[in-house]
Amino acid sequence: MADILAIGAHPDDVEIAVGGTLLRMRDRGYSVVLCHASDGEPTPRGSRETRLAEAQAAARFLGAGVEVLSLHNRYIMDTLEARRELALAVRKHRPTLILSPWPVGEHPDHRAVAHLADAARFYAKLTKTDDRGEPWELPPWWAPEQLYYHLASAVEDPRPAFLVDITEEYPRKQQLLACYRSQGNVDMERLAKNAFWGELIGVRYAEAFFRRGGLSLPDLSGFLGPPGRGTSGSAATRM
Amino acid sequence: MADILAIGAHPDDVEIAVGGTLLRMRDRGYSVVLCHASDGEPTPRGSRETRLAEAQAAARFLGAGVEVLSLHNRYIMDTLEARRELALAVRKHRPTLILSPWPVGEHPDHRAVAHLADAARFYAKLTKTDDRGEPWELPPWWAPEQLYYHLASAVEDPRPAFLVDITEEYPRKQQLLACYRSQGNVDMERLAKNAFWGELIGVRYAEAFFRRGGLSLPDLSGFLGPPGRGTSGSAATRM
Amino acid sequence: MADILAIGAHPDDVEIAVGGTLLRMRDRGYSVVLCHASDGEPTPRGSRETRLAEAQAAARFLGAGVEVLSLHNRYIMDTLEARRELALAVRKHRPTLILSPWPVGEHPDHRAVAHLADAARFYAKLTKTDDRGEPWELPPWWAPEQLYYHLASAVEDPRPAFLVDITEEYPRKQQLLACYRSQGNVDMERLAKNAFWGELIGVRYAEAFFRRGGLSLPDLSGFLGPPGRGTSGSAATRM
Amino acid sequence: MADILAIGAHPDDVEIAVGGTLLRMRDRGYSVVLCHASDGEPTPRGSRETRLAEAQAAARFLGAGVEVLSLHNRYIMDTLEARRELALAVRKHRPTLILSPWPVGEHPDHRAVAHLADAARFYAKLTKTDDRGEPWELPPWWAPEQLYYHLASAVEDPRPAFLVDITEEYPRKQQLLACYRSQGNVDMERLAKNAFWGELIGVRYAEAFFRRGGLSLPDLSGFLGPPGRGTSGSAATRM
Amino acid sequence: MADILAIGAHPDDVEIAVGGTLLRMRDRGYSVVLCHASDGEPTPRGSRETRLAEAQAAARFLGAGVEVLSLHNRYIMDTLEARRELALAVRKHRPTLILSPWPVGEHPDHRAVAHLADAARFYAKLTKTDDRGEPWELPPWWAPEQLYYHLASAVEDPRPAFLVDITEEYPRKQQLLACYRSQGNVDMERLAKNAFWGELIGVRYAEAFFRRGGLSLPDLSGFLGPPGRGTSGSAATRM
Amino acid sequence: MADILAIGAHPDDVEIAVGGTLLRMRDRGYSVVLCHASDGEPTPRGSRETRLAEAQAAARFLGAGVEVLSLHNRYIMDTLEARRELALAVRKHRPTLILSPWPVGEHPDHRAVAHLADAARFYAKLTKTDDRGEPWELPPWWAPEQLYYHLASAVEDPRPAFLVDITEEYPRKQQLLACYRSQGNVDMERLAKNAFWGELIGVRYAEAFFRRGGLSLPDLSGFLGPPGRGTSGSAATRM
Repeated sequence: MADILAIGAHPDDVEIAVGGTLLRMRDRGYSVVLCHASDGEPTPRGSRETRLAEAQAAARFLGAGVEVLSLHNRYIMDTLEARRELALAVRKHRPTLILSPWPVGEHPDHRAVAHLADAARFYAKLTKTDDRGEPWELPPWWAPEQLYYHLASAVEDPRPAFLVDITEEYPRKQQLLACYRSQGNVDMERLAKNAFWGELIGVRYAEAFFRRGGLSLPDLSGFLGPPGRGTSGSAATRM
Repeated sequence: MADILAIGAHPDDVEIAVGGTLLRMRDRGYSVVLCHASDGEPTPRGSRETRLAEAQAAARFLGAGVEVLSLHNRYIMDTLEARRELALAVRKHRPTLILSPWPVGEHPDHRAVAHLADAARFYAKLTKTDDRGEPWELPPWWAPEQLYYHLASAVEDPRPAFLVDITEEYPRKQQLLACYRSQGNVDMERLAKNAFWGELIGVRYAEAFFRRGGLSLPDLSGFLGPPGRGTSGSAATRM
Repeated sequence: MADILAIGAHPDDVEIAVGGTLLRMRDRGYSVVLCHASDGEPTPRGSRETRLAEAQAAARFLGAGVEVLSLHNRYIMDTLEARRELALAVRKHRPTLILSPWPVGEHPDHRAVAHLADAARFYAKLTKTDDRGEPWELPPWWAPEQLYYHLASAVEDPRPAFLVDITEEYPRKQQLLACYRSQGNVDMERLAKNAFWGELIGVRYAEAFFRRGGLSLPDLSGFLGPPGRGTSGSAATRM
Repeated sequence: MADILAIGAHPDDVEIAVGGTLLRMRDRGYSVVLCHASDGEPTPRGSRETRLAEAQAAARFLGAGVEVLSLHNRYIMDTLEARRELALAVRKHRPTLILSPWPVGEHPDHRAVAHLADAARFYAKLTKTDDRGEPWELPPWWAPEQLYYHLASAVEDPRPAFLVDITEEYPRKQQLLACYRSQGNVDMERLAKNAFWGELIGVRYAEAFFRRGGLSLPDLSGFLGPPGRGTSGSAATRM
Repeated sequence: MADILAIGAHPDDVEIAVGGTLLRMRDRGYSVVLCHASDGEPTPRGSRETRLAEAQAAARFLGAGVEVLSLHNRYIMDTLEARRELALAVRKHRPTLILSPWPVGEHPDHRAVAHLADAARFYAKLTKTDDRGEPWELPPWWAPEQLYYHLASAVEDPRPAFLVDITEEYPRKQQLLACYRSQGNVDMERLAKNAFWGELIGVRYAEAFFRRGGLSLPDLSGFLGPPGRGTSGSAATRM
Repeated sequence: MADILAIGAHPDDVEIAVGGTLLRMRDRGYSVVLCHASDGEPTPRGSRETRLAEAQAAARFLGAGVEVLSLHNRYIMDTLEARRELALAVRKHRPTLILSPWPVGEHPDHRAVAHLADAARFYAKLTKTDDRGEPWELPPWWAPEQLYYHLASAVEDPRPAFLVDITEEYPRKQQLLACYRSQGNVDMERLAKNAFWGELIGVRYAEAFFRRGGLSLPDLSGFLGPPGRGTSGSAATRM
């Protein structure tokens, strides 16, 4: 049972996109499972063993569980089989919240996982064995919440539903990404765009979250602090 | 000193748009001041006395302060004088959060107050007496947060930054609006659109908030409840 | 030969989304055929027989023809075979107007049918037997018009091309949906969002239609009534 | 009493933007009044007498009434006085539908008239003499419909609510514009953009209409012709 | 080695969409290769031989290379095999810039090629033989730039990143399209929409280019001409 | 006669928003005039003399001319008089390109100058003395190009028409801004958002430009370098 199941195409995708927020959630006591659809291989610089070890190290650093599925790096397609494999991971971890890629960008694996994750959340709740005979050995589960992250080299959709300030977590996020040393010369800040997203809310580093439909807040206290504080305003110093 | 200063063109504007959320904020201990730019008169059905009495009654019901400025209903314009009058109200109440109209819709008073409120927030922080001699008898104040509400008969911008579920407060919001009995046959639900906004987050009644720039959330706990709860998911019952 | 061919993934999709408008079109003498890509099974609460009987009952209530294709509920994919099966339905019914899902939302079947319907409209007009040997036993047909409906739990795209007021048809629409009693506890109003769409045009219940490209109206008479009426204006009563 | 009151900043604005549609409406028996906020002078090539004579000639060609207000070309501002003058025109002609500029583009007069027309529609319905003493010698009127046209050299908003095919009226529209011969070397097609808008609906020439809020259609018959026609489809001739 | 690799679903797609710009680029010395994913057959009016001959003639007219892949007209799907075939074309021609379809519109082949081209650009750079055994007999290549063109009968996305004025090339573009005489009665201007796009920049004919992410210009000289020219302004002749 | 007239509300606005690009344009030989609508006073930290001296120093650093108009900081309104004063500056400098604020954000001065600059460009071309008697002692001028810059603390519109990489100019831009030492503790990078805009095109620092209507490029050479270079691609190093 996990509070959050964070799904990505390759080991390090989830960490690059939302690693800072996951660190913050762990600090606050939430359980997290990372689900990498592939082992990320083949690449010029890795092997399956290396990548799995790195994924484990990153999960350990995060205090998260980790699962690596059998899909092929570079060849992930939105198939029924892939949907089922991912749906089983949803059933196994019974998350309250699924994090998965926002379907933008030109990377075919990311686009495929975006569609797979939507389908897997839905497949995981199906309650009747259908006529195709697949074994659904785990009880059904409906994850009530889903949020999306952006992982593309170009910023196609600069209007996320909300952002989380990770300035405080940023040094630890860098350590987290350093677990993936076989991919070491990747410009992870470029992919993560933390400074870019931070600018949208006036902080140094942030991570962005997208969402289908409206966003609900319980009240306006997030803009206010505790009642009657009344001290966050200040005399202006200039135009 | 108020946590929230809610600015509208006419008495009842703020209550129609965000009365449910204000009730919720009062319940949670936040202080609220309503600022009506005009007394709402003349109208076919009221008098200045009636409208002021109603505005007071509504404020009492809300447990809020209230201020009625001297601008003329139907003839509110974005002038320097009007900006200053509203800026003085900001200085007087020193709010952490300003609520004001989102500049859409065809009503000239609402459009004017939208611009006035932006300017007043800015004017309220000016620290040096300028060469025009106006008395700025109150110390400067910068309200650190501003949110916008929608008050138009047509839904021009159906993508608010977030929504607040007011299903629980809805009966009391109706009582609040009933304070404005001289305007009694106005279709307030039509203007408030609470059922419409509710649909965007899957609840019966909601109020919508707009915002310039990005929205920051402290973490993802609003989607999760307390850590480890892990029980909000459920077996699906159907496709 | 049908005036309208309304395509959906599962029996009841089309009725939920645009049943009120179809009732209205039937009242005005237009012929309608419903085309369900699957029989909607398996579900926890139905059987193929039940679902087919319900689909027939709904079609009878509507005075429409009905066709249930062989695709599998939950596993509809955009394949060449599925395109051809749907294209044959288009050739068979030779519609002037095709209604199909707008490609938004997270339901994989709806997304697949959205793409299938676009392809089927196109495949139906192909005039030359290709090199793959499939039998195209019916003459080609090009449906000159296509409109899209929204069927998603979250309102991802709140800007339809136009809406149809179904306030008058709404009680009959509820009877129509009651034909699907095996799925009885589904919150069909939630999916149909008729009250939500109604708000966009100031009526109680409406259905929404989306469209690629611009919308053509023959003139402005829809905003005017018959010439010289000149009586639809009225003295204002307030604000 | 007019079916349509078409408001523009200068004589020829309305004719350039929606002259074809107005011709069509006249052919169908609707009454039209043109309201030019200014006489269009001074310009390098005209005089007040010339412009008024041209405006009269254009109105005669259209079979429309015409009113020229006292605002100054190039210096139109959104003032209370200008709102009242335009509101009196609304009260005088009691239109069902107001046509006015969509508030885009860089021309200050067009932007001002866009705001003035919104305010005038609203002012025209006010029923109680206010405390400013202005004479409202005509009974109040609420024009129930308002549509907007685009008149800017750059296409800032290429997504109109709908378009009207004026291919048939186009030669007569050119004759209509030829009434403004003192401004003869203006590239009216450039401003009117009829060929551009036509492309959005696949016809040679169209005019575009914008709208706040949703668009309501009575049913889908506009996409179908009379019931059972079933002949507008056709065998495709190529991919 | 090509400066530009222009990818389309069928022979003539690329020429219709961006033929004028390709003529311009050839005039300026850039090398171009056309890559048609299919031979465009079967169609009612052609044969493989005819289409290949026409594609060759068009390429000759353009001074471009041409490659016709083995995908099937009307049945192009986003498969691994198709991605690899297209990726080999990218490796073979080593382009600096790839042109491919923008993923809008209802034509299934165009949508498929849009996704294939994105994937092929990515596949072409993979450096390690994967575990599936396919022969990657050519060295890897990363095309640093990609732009998209619009080829749909309805204008779904009227906001291209930029446009290229092809008024001067337009007569030659018509000659280029005339190479495809077997498809002769196709309304190519309708598909190309050159007059429509031209209107967006105030010229007679233009072609439109779309792009993921931001557009970089080296400076503002494109709006200025050579320094100090200062003569492109002019006395205004009228409002 | 200036190639570029850059208009802002206060001294340093233009330099903050587009100072890097202006440095680049000066390096390439273009002439620039800065036009500050006010002297920026009063502020807590300056005097008219200081601000003028700083504005001069900044202009000297840039190699630009400078003009400071008489409008009042904090009280700039879109009046006829202000339009005329700005229009005279346009006539005096006869620019090919005007740079002015994009009308977003909550700062009333910036919004006013945005409208003033549009009107001034238009007023500057009027050729006939109107009936108001104002002296237009300079010959008329039409600036053929206009671009807009963003100067707001919140990024309301994250989709500029294009961006200019100013990484190389960035150190000099900082020196330029240092000329405004009386306002020294202003967080200019926050306002300039150069790192943010840079991210949209994959460089360290950029400035953003907005535009009404479409953007025209002469060809695709900006994406290619000189013909036949063919060397900007590269072997990929990783997924």
